[in-house]
Amino acid sequence: MLTKIETIRHSLAHILARAIKEFYPEVKFGIGPDIENGFYYDFSFAKNQNLSLQDLPKIEKKMKQLVKQNIKFIKKQVSTNEAKKIFKNQPYKLELIKDIIIKNKNKKIYIYEFADFIDLCAGPHIKSTKDININAFKLNRIAGAYWKGDKKNPMLTRIYGIAFEDEKKLKDYIIQQEEAKKRDHRILGKKLDLFCFSELVGAGLPLYTPKGTILKDILQDELWQISRKFNVQKVSTPHFAKIKLYEISGHKDKFGDELFHIKDHYNQNFAVKPVQCPHHNQIYASRLRSYRDLPIRYMESGMQYRDEKPGEIGGLTRTRGFTVEDGHTYCEMNQVEKEVKILVNIIKKFYKGFGLWGNHWVSLSVRDYSHPEKYIGEPKDWNKAEKILQKICNDLKLDAKKIEGEAALYGPKIDFMFKDALGNERQLATVQLDFASPKRFNLVYTNKKGKNDFVIMIHRAILGSYERFLALLIEHYAGAFPLWLSPVQISVIPISEKNNKYANEIFKQLNENDFRCELKKENETLGKKIRQAQIEKTPYILIVGDKEQKSKTISVRERSKGDIGTMKLNKFIEQIQKQINDRI
Amino acid sequence: MLTKIETIRHSLAHILARAIKEFYPEVKFGIGPDIENGFYYDFSFAKNQNLSLQDLPKIEKKMKQLVKQNIKFIKKQVSTNEAKKIFKNQPYKLELIKDIIIKNKNKKIYIYEFADFIDLCAGPHIKSTKDININAFKLNRIAGAYWKGDKKNPMLTRIYGIAFEDEKKLKDYIIQQEEAKKRDHRILGKKLDLFCFSELVGAGLPLYTPKGTILKDILQDELWQISRKFNVQKVSTPHFAKIKLYEISGHKDKFGDELFHIKDHYNQNFAVKPVQCPHHNQIYASRLRSYRDLPIRYMESGMQYRDEKPGEIGGLTRTRGFTVEDGHTYCEMNQVEKEVKILVNIIKKFYKGFGLWGNHWVSLSVRDYSHPEKYIGEPKDWNKAEKILQKICNDLKLDAKKIEGEAALYGPKIDFMFKDALGNERQLATVQLDFASPKRFNLVYTNKKGKNDFVIMIHRAILGSYERFLALLIEHYAGAFPLWLSPVQISVIPISEKNNKYANEIFKQLNENDFRCELKKENETLGKKIRQAQIEKTPYILIVGDKEQKSKTISVRERSKGDIGTMKLNKFIEQIQKQINDRI
Repeated sequence: MLTKIETIRHSLAHILARAIKEFYPEVKFGIGPDIENGFYYDFSFAKNQNLSLQDLPKIEKKMKQLVKQNIKFIKKQVSTNEAKKIFKNQPYKLELIKDIIIKNKNKKIYIYEFADFIDLCAGPHIKSTKDININAFKLNRIAGAYWKGDKKNPMLTRIYGIAFEDEKKLKDYIIQQEEAKKRDHRILGKKLDLFCFSELVGAGLPLYTPKGTILKDILQDELWQISRKFNVQKVSTPHFAKIKLYEISGHKDKFGDELFHIKDHYNQNFAVKPVQCPHHNQIYASRLRSYRDLPIRYMESGMQYRDEKPGEIGGLTRTRGFTVEDGHTYCEMNQVEKEVKILVNIIKKFYKGFGLWGNHWVSLSVRDYSHPEKYIGEPKDWNKAEKILQKICNDLKLDAKKIEGEAALYGPKIDFMFKDALGNERQLATVQLDFASPKRFNLVYTNKKGKNDFVIMIHRAILGSYERFLALLIEHYAGAFPLWLSPVQISVIPISEKNNKYANEIFKQLNENDFRCELKKENETLGKKIRQAQIEKTPYILIVGDKEQKSKTISVRERSKGDIGTMKLNKFIEQIQKQINDRI
Repeated sequence: MLTKIETIRHSLAHILARAIKEFYPEVKFGIGPDIENGFYYDFSFAKNQNLSLQDLPKIEKKMKQLVKQNIKFIKKQVSTNEAKKIFKNQPYKLELIKDIIIKNKNKKIYIYEFADFIDLCAGPHIKSTKDININAFKLNRIAGAYWKGDKKNPMLTRIYGIAFEDEKKLKDYIIQQEEAKKRDHRILGKKLDLFCFSELVGAGLPLYTPKGTILKDILQDELWQISRKFNVQKVSTPHFAKIKLYEISGHKDKFGDELFHIKDHYNQNFAVKPVQCPHHNQIYASRLRSYRDLPIRYMESGMQYRDEKPGEIGGLTRTRGFTVEDGHTYCEMNQVEKEVKILVNIIKKFYKGFGLWGNHWVSLSVRDYSHPEKYIGEPKDWNKAEKILQKICNDLKLDAKKIEGEAALYGPKIDFMFKDALGNERQLATVQLDFASPKRFNLVYTNKKGKNDFVIMIHRAILGSYERFLALLIEHYAGAFPLWLSPVQISVIPISEKNNKYANEIFKQLNENDFRCELKKENETLGKKIRQAQIEKTPYILIVGDKEQKSKTISVRERSKGDIGTMKLNKFIEQIQKQINDRI
């Protein structure tokens, strides 16, 4: 079922087609569905007809004229022969009719009449164009698209439009899109020199430049500093393992073609690790464990690799290599509550540091009770585990929505969905109970009664992958990272060469105080050096000339406030140290 | 040419064979060469004859009797037929004769007569057993060995002996071997739970447990803290890249079968990275560079992988996956001197921290001047570079030995050889000039004249691989790491359950002060808990009972000194903080 606005978008696709026909009577029609925020229609133009963005206003104008006429959409059922006759000059429509017949011989064929434009379509559509707000839609983009998405087929011209319930929503969307473009992490990542890709290394395999590495390291250290207070321990494991490991863990089945395979020169088969879990399990399994050793809490920031489709790779949000902060707790059933609470507290602390906590919601993801067969494990364990997670959500006032059918195969979980500055929602953190893996890997411990028992495994992710999280941070802050995160925190700029020595002293003192700073002593104009630091979104610029040198001071420019006056270096240091501690 | 002692060792192999013949007349002889520190001989005994270590003394005794008799070694040339006749009952010797003929029809066949024992051998040997010090050799080991090292051949019994110039050298060697056994990193690594291997992950792919990860992290942080003061920047790159990258860099040729190959599902060929250099080059190449950007100093602690032969893999010294702290400086020719000096200073600082600086020597590794064709690059660049490195060695008083023919293919280098506690020498650090890679990858910069010029690349390694360095550290300290390196620095042990709360307070305060500590509150006897901490070589054990609880103190046991008295916690913290700062 389409919603009202989705139906409007679908109808607008037909109206667009009708408008196109006005200007290009010989056009061949592909398909025209509604999509998120709008619609599109695919056209095949004659060879000498090149549609460009400049043509869109006239087409949009025609569409608005049509909308104003309150034209009705009329649905009709036709026979196959009738359909073939109606679309005899439309090869793509004829192909679609053939597809319908092949799929289901008795399937009914419907057409929609809109004024003098007939389209092959099962609907639904709005009753008439009265339902469309004339100021709430817009054509915005042209792209090439293969017929049926297949490279072997002809390339059609796809015209995109956006449409909303009212004008305000349309405008908000346009502003948000412009904002998103400015914040696009792929563009900012290049501009701020945070990461790069290399044709010789391969698509989707990011290389972190010094500034990007600083960001990644800060995130890593942040997670570690929070986690160590809860006695979590770091481990470190290799990037591939025998394929057998992933057969046992079930990841060979789960990831299939996404696994990168390696064969050594001695006839052994390996796969590059797509996850950390089975590796951590092998560390657990390397010794005999007793209840005295539990809980065991491992964490690792390690790279993982998945063979994503080349066409789907883009920026840092969809990569083939990505760094995951993966953690696993091994404990007894009666420790689960405490352990999950620890993990939730780690997640909370981490997101508070980025001002993202509060802008989130929590899902208590439980079984689909009508399909118990979809899950592994004993119902009584599931009952117990879901009850524990519910209690934790209550105790910690997580205000969780219980969502049925969202549990993992092996156990229920708590998922954390966060909103970035653009309002995009992303599932980032999760805590999952797992009863199955310990059984697959025979991960046991000697319980208090001296008997072997399976350990309970808890998976936790805090920031998803560093790559996706970095993309989020770059877009969230539009590259203007808060002081504590900024790869370069302070830029020291001497006014003229005479001031180089004094500038260098300032630079050195900042360096010794562990601030990340740079000294811009190139032989450039002051204006150019300041502009460059501004482009790089450096939080503080310290300008030192004769006046500052004489009075042993610095002139400070803050990124958003501009000139904030002249002061002694130690006062400045005190001030920014507080700012860093407060994470402002 | 064999040295005198090598010749003696070879002759002792014959004497061993003669002695064996005394006890086992039906024995079949394999081969018996000299090896490092001694010799061996391979024998095929009759099925019912099982040789064990208990048999060695009687054989050794017989050998000494033979040595005392001043028996001569007599070399003779024989025809093929004569040889076949002499060894008619010795199938392995007959096979060797056949091998000689196949290899070279006209090759002369020699035998050695020693008393009534004739062996197929080209020598050389000592003149007579007079040359052997009767107290300076010893049989020490029995092992199985396939004939010709081939699994398809029969398994022979190999008897090993050791032999030296004099009795003192023999005894020193035996003591050193015993010490080495106690310090063996494979045994200690398991005992101290520093790392593990998993059949399911694969041989030579170490998994670091929490304690091993702490050690690795400390080393990484140490290198970073030293390097950052010199404005070195961290970068981070993926673990595989298109094969093309390694074709250009020359590593595909260089590593050949040691490369692990990956093919994705879209027909692209990759290899797992065997080195970091070409990856760093791609970061350099990701932007236009000017002389103003230089020098650029990158470093990365990353895992690399090489397909080592399964039979050669062992412990942490020969692994398939290893972590390298690799660094590359890109600079102008006139910056080379300063940059190399920075790198040498980093190396010096690092090794001083481990007390290894001073126990080392430096090689200035230059071209083989008689074979200039073996090297890449312009002779005038080489001249300049070798001169610069020589000047650096002089300026920094490195007391370097100039060693011809030890330069890398692409440039001269300075190598640092260190001795561990057992006197073993290992090449760990190196600084290498490279004129070739920038040309292969077209790594240029705009010089002051506004023209493109190739940048100079400097490779540096500080500790080789973390794995090999960890093995060295474990053996160097025999697992008793100095306080600043110890994975667990302090063990807090309550005398009885009543003291758990107080012990926990102590533990918490130490934790908050960033010490790595553990609380042993298991329900075990005090003696057992102390012994366990001693086995784990924990530097400090704090014992807290009623007395300590009342007086708000702790009783301190130091690893080597034992009980060092009762004190207030803050005094203890002050004391160990100083110890950590001083790296004692």
